[in-house]
Amino acid sequence: MSSFASQLPGPRGAAARPSFIAQLHARWAAGTLLCVGLDPEVERLPATIRGGTAAAALLSFNAAIVEATADLVCAYKPNAAFYEAHGPAGADALVRTIALIHERAPNVPVLLDAKRGDMANTSRLYARAAFDVCAADAVTVQPYLGAQALAPFLERADRGVFVLCRTSDPGAGELQDLRSDGEPLYLHVARQVADLWNARGNCGLVVGATWPEELRAIRAAAPTLPILLPGIGAQGGDLEACVRAGLDAQGQGLLVSASRSVLYASPGADFGQAARREALRLRDAINQQHA
Amino acid sequence: MSSFASQLPGPRGAAARPSFIAQLHARWAAGTLLCVGLDPEVERLPATIRGGTAAAALLSFNAAIVEATADLVCAYKPNAAFYEAHGPAGADALVRTIALIHERAPNVPVLLDAKRGDMANTSRLYARAAFDVCAADAVTVQPYLGAQALAPFLERADRGVFVLCRTSDPGAGELQDLRSDGEPLYLHVARQVADLWNARGNCGLVVGATWPEELRAIRAAAPTLPILLPGIGAQGGDLEACVRAGLDAQGQGLLVSASRSVLYASPGADFGQAARREALRLRDAINQQHA
Repeated sequence: MSSFASQLPGPRGAAARPSFIAQLHARWAAGTLLCVGLDPEVERLPATIRGGTAAAALLSFNAAIVEATADLVCAYKPNAAFYEAHGPAGADALVRTIALIHERAPNVPVLLDAKRGDMANTSRLYARAAFDVCAADAVTVQPYLGAQALAPFLERADRGVFVLCRTSDPGAGELQDLRSDGEPLYLHVARQVADLWNARGNCGLVVGATWPEELRAIRAAAPTLPILLPGIGAQGGDLEACVRAGLDAQGQGLLVSASRSVLYASPGADFGQAARREALRLRDAINQQHA
Repeated sequence: MSSFASQLPGPRGAAARPSFIAQLHARWAAGTLLCVGLDPEVERLPATIRGGTAAAALLSFNAAIVEATADLVCAYKPNAAFYEAHGPAGADALVRTIALIHERAPNVPVLLDAKRGDMANTSRLYARAAFDVCAADAVTVQPYLGAQALAPFLERADRGVFVLCRTSDPGAGELQDLRSDGEPLYLHVARQVADLWNARGNCGLVVGATWPEELRAIRAAAPTLPILLPGIGAQGGDLEACVRAGLDAQGQGLLVSASRSVLYASPGADFGQAARREALRLRDAINQQHA
């Protein structure tokens, strides 16, 4: 390897971490299925946080949210778009946010919600960006290109790979509901991932929390896969129905994700305490569904 | 709008540019359907380029390629992954690469190959990142989430939105070939985009150059959409068959994309001249198919 290759960013921070799936199971065993989405928008941050640059504000805000909620969550889920929208400084804030979580909440895995997917030769670089540059423990990916294209993600047995299955937007069914061999596309995706893509035991699915009936069918097709369930709270998902439909046989198997309802629980200087109260409320409401 | 919002990166460089589709038609009229993919890998760059940081090398290399080929291409297509793999400095090199193209080749549109796609609330931020932060004229997106989720891209009438339809990996058919109502998924995508998503006349499709038969069916389903045809050259696509299958009724309609065969035409200091020779050869080989 040329000396120049050493300029490529190497693994940071995550080198000595357990596998994503081991971390996730430990958090579930600790009694929480709640995932908090770190999707801050500068316009909505409390005035006390906004002082320097937008990227600095994102980082300060995330630090406070992590401080307030680390013992209540099974994962943090930063969405890459909220950082990329601020350019290179935002990309830096994302790297620093994940490093900060690894440092201050070392037992909480980080799922980078990036929804990537490209030819294998390019997925290789996206996997490097997510797992090595950003040091994320898991990532979300698009199913459309198939398992071969996603191999560079899937081959990383220590990292989680969550495949979009049924998304939460009202128009999500446009392609996802197309029926082939009597079943909708999203069930084909669920089966392919459960039966083939998960050869290394590191896959999960993403199912919007607005579709409890669909979620029930997906859980039947993929009985043991972790399912990321975004859309609780601000997106209006039905928490009770979805949690019941999505739990696995052990009463676990879900990452129930809330973002805005936790991040913006208070517009004032007490946003951290308010976020903690809302996270506690959500964690307990989830747990009540399998009490 | 709060003063803080002014910290968000605004449109750069592209403010006064014609629409993507107008730029593309002007380049086609100038006699080229060739698109060059700016996907540099530091390990493969000539020694003369490698001096400072990896990000600086990417930018110098891209500048030389643009200098050497600008009059021969209908678009440049940087792939975001090749920059993200270098972290925030790579993100910066991507922004600067696009700014450089706008400056030195102002009549050549830039198609950012990012393959993004998320819920509408998040696509809004990806659209901002691609079109305003990076100032790209067009972007590639994933179809799986449907048009509603992609609305923030589709609503930008002055920018191009290329939707993945049939990709070039050997395993691309895993989902794309699933048949619904007697037709494969990729043809449903082609029809949805042509008949519905293209309401503002700014859509295109992405079809791997390894599938001439599929391309023929896609062109029939979408007679007037621009089609990005990656995979010529290093990926082994059949240039002649694909160009013939993909041309529109005007003998245009294609962005035939080559990356490695142009970028690495010579490993030495003459890489710019070699890239130009290969670009010229490809442009002419494409044009011979509709002579």
